[in-house]
Amino acid sequence: MANDKKVEQITDMEVDFAQWFTDVCRKAQLIDYSSIKGVFIYRPYGYAIWENIQAVLDKEFKKQGVENVYMPLLIPESLLQKEKDHVEGFAPECAWVTMGGVDKLEEKYAIRPTSETLFCEHFANVLQSHRDLPMKYNQWCSVLRWEKTSRPFLRHREFLWQEGHTIHATAEEAKEFTETMLGVYADFCENVLAMPVTRGQKTEKEKFKGAEATYTIECMMHDRKALQAGTSHYFGDGFAKAFEIEFADKNNQKTNPHETSWGVSTRLIGGIIMTHGDNNGLVLPPKIAPIQAVIIPIAAHKGGVLESADKLLETLTDAGIRVKCDTSDNSAGWKFAEYEMKGVPVRIELGPRDIEAGQCVLVSRVTREKKIVKLDNIVEEINTALSEVHTALFEKALKNREEHTYTATTFEEMKEIAATKTGFVKTMWCGETECEMRVKEEAGMTSRCIPFRQEHLSDVCPICGKPAKHMIYWGVAY
Amino acid sequence: MANDKKVEQITDMEVDFAQWFTDVCRKAQLIDYSSIKGVFIYRPYGYAIWENIQAVLDKEFKKQGVENVYMPLLIPESLLQKEKDHVEGFAPECAWVTMGGVDKLEEKYAIRPTSETLFCEHFANVLQSHRDLPMKYNQWCSVLRWEKTSRPFLRHREFLWQEGHTIHATAEEAKEFTETMLGVYADFCENVLAMPVTRGQKTEKEKFKGAEATYTIECMMHDRKALQAGTSHYFGDGFAKAFEIEFADKNNQKTNPHETSWGVSTRLIGGIIMTHGDNNGLVLPPKIAPIQAVIIPIAAHKGGVLESADKLLETLTDAGIRVKCDTSDNSAGWKFAEYEMKGVPVRIELGPRDIEAGQCVLVSRVTREKKIVKLDNIVEEINTALSEVHTALFEKALKNREEHTYTATTFEEMKEIAATKTGFVKTMWCGETECEMRVKEEAGMTSRCIPFRQEHLSDVCPICGKPAKHMIYWGVAY
Repeated sequence: MANDKKVEQITDMEVDFAQWFTDVCRKAQLIDYSSIKGVFIYRPYGYAIWENIQAVLDKEFKKQGVENVYMPLLIPESLLQKEKDHVEGFAPECAWVTMGGVDKLEEKYAIRPTSETLFCEHFANVLQSHRDLPMKYNQWCSVLRWEKTSRPFLRHREFLWQEGHTIHATAEEAKEFTETMLGVYADFCENVLAMPVTRGQKTEKEKFKGAEATYTIECMMHDRKALQAGTSHYFGDGFAKAFEIEFADKNNQKTNPHETSWGVSTRLIGGIIMTHGDNNGLVLPPKIAPIQAVIIPIAAHKGGVLESADKLLETLTDAGIRVKCDTSDNSAGWKFAEYEMKGVPVRIELGPRDIEAGQCVLVSRVTREKKIVKLDNIVEEINTALSEVHTALFEKALKNREEHTYTATTFEEMKEIAATKTGFVKTMWCGETECEMRVKEEAGMTSRCIPFRQEHLSDVCPICGKPAKHMIYWGVAY
Repeated sequence: MANDKKVEQITDMEVDFAQWFTDVCRKAQLIDYSSIKGVFIYRPYGYAIWENIQAVLDKEFKKQGVENVYMPLLIPESLLQKEKDHVEGFAPECAWVTMGGVDKLEEKYAIRPTSETLFCEHFANVLQSHRDLPMKYNQWCSVLRWEKTSRPFLRHREFLWQEGHTIHATAEEAKEFTETMLGVYADFCENVLAMPVTRGQKTEKEKFKGAEATYTIECMMHDRKALQAGTSHYFGDGFAKAFEIEFADKNNQKTNPHETSWGVSTRLIGGIIMTHGDNNGLVLPPKIAPIQAVIIPIAAHKGGVLESADKLLETLTDAGIRVKCDTSDNSAGWKFAEYEMKGVPVRIELGPRDIEAGQCVLVSRVTREKKIVKLDNIVEEINTALSEVHTALFEKALKNREEHTYTATTFEEMKEIAATKTGFVKTMWCGETECEMRVKEEAGMTSRCIPFRQEHLSDVCPICGKPAKHMIYWGVAY
């Protein structure tokens, strides 16, 4: 008996983008709600995307000489307080452990909101000589920030991420490494997630608490809001001094090392959904899709169809393609809709007539174009199709960004664009926080970054009229 | 200028096994202490061992159809209390979060000591029909248990582990899966970690709180104490009833599924150290060693030595062997001692005369035997050497267990063995907790397991004289 269940409908993104997003997260079975507000469960399909992200990034980190470690979950309050700016930034949103078993603790412990303080304490313990430098550490873990509002993937009280922490003998080396890691993130977003990025530096106001400089990659989502996809921070020797991290340099003088930290999180999955998704559901970049291609046998009851599908499954699996064959008793139409919802990049339809003709039908999740290909060349065909999906996704996202990035040279223009359009606005800027605050108050936009690739748009800051120092991007951010 | 630093000495294991263990953990740079008592830092070398364990096990889990997920870190007190035995077992050793930001929480949250309750709540949310079963989930995470005493790897307040949780349509299927996963652990310990295991069932007294049955693998350490290396639990439908997990069976009747859970932790690293280590330090089983072979150039200043070493490094790396070449200015003697301390299975010495003769010297970390081998066959030679190290480790550990497993048929004999010898004692047993308690009180041993491979040693329980039900293993456990 055929199962006649329907794929549930999702809200159209043009009707309500936020509801569309939540529908996709839930119906593609990426996430579930837990009984604690703002804390989510990563379901198998959602977690598999994260595992694929981890696998690629972890390899890239290791190429940079980074080693993985694991630091404690808990930070004593006194340790968190050692660096003034840092504690001011994070203490208000910490969850606090005050009881161990039935005993009240003498000192309360924060669940890590980020682990700079723990890494610093450890570096101070183990660093001795310049021979030990650089130390390049990373950990994959969850962190907790007790925020008031929440949204799947974008803002969790508990979320999964990686945090890299390194110490170097010189400021130059540390600065260079900060930029190197931003480059790793940028390349990953573009080449693996098919998400075009703008690379730049955060303003004083938007930088990480305790950092000397924060670098960022900013992505434009389908609704033209900005997503900060990854950040890399240069700390100078501020933390090292606060935590008394020292080493004997080549002249046997005690010196403080220079420090960096950098991180990306499961927010990237939110970015993938909002960059590539459509009204049929999720669209996954092939390189991190848990299922890259799905085989749908057509008229599966007919002789030879299941056997051929099975053989195809084996051929593609052996070639290292993540492939699934759906032999369930659901209708072909249901299966088409189901795997579109789940964002599988390529669908393979295989029926009796195809088999007879030694061919199958490939359907791209992005263009929905059908292509008939020969079975005896199937591995290459699928790899080509996957690569085409990647390119199509990247180009679509790039087009969206280019078509919705505006230039303004007066404050009036900025406010006009902010009021009537969605997207990024680029302007010159004097560098003062006061002007940045005015843009937020009067135009409802925050500074996204001072891009590395600067352009000269005019000579003055459009807000105050004083000489401009930088070109800067503004936008409405997630 | 040659660096003349010495490898620090470690305490001999015969003098003080506990101190030897701690010395190895610290000097092989596996672990560091944090500022919270009982909470440890996993350093790069220690964490790399865990990563290798994860990689192998994760693949095995996936072969069994298991999918990874991530559940929240925090458990509301009310959720933890839903299963009576379970909360009694874990609540007294939970760390409790009572404040979020600056606000006192309405309900306190436990940091997960284990996640049965969270998985159950999620299963209840998502399970609908028999078509959804089985659900086989696993997560890699840390858990926290606020214990009074601690030791590196063996007893942490926070430790890394994996916990698998599955639900099945029938009791038979769930029981079978419980045993399957114990088999996965047993094979992993023996074939990957070179640790012989005894497979069996825990007594009522020793089973997991809330389980119907707990299966275990027990290993004998070098000091002849027992280490419980992994457990797999069958829950029946007890948790499912407590958490109202239901599905519509084939006749559309509401039914409770049957549940399992199973886990191993970084305790396995403690087991590796105490099974294979010696007075020169760590000895790592080749399959999980972060460095499987280390190349030590001899007279490295002479022409061609470094080039040959580099070429060898490349050849071995390309062959998938985890190899390191130490070209630092430390002395060869220092390097020999350093990599012995770090437990690298095979050392490769390469000097000018070797290169001239087209050969190198391999030294096994276990037997310390030297073997001259041809460079043109080096990949095969190294693989053979690694395989020999694995076999030698397994056989040494098996011999230790066999030579220190005793049989007793009277309680007097049991007490005599416990007082004068170290190791396992096997006896018959009536099955009563009362007798088990007496063995603990009067002989200082706990039951390790009722082995699957039963032997008939006598007709009666040596403690009470009543008819025996099982053969059982006793020992002193970590």
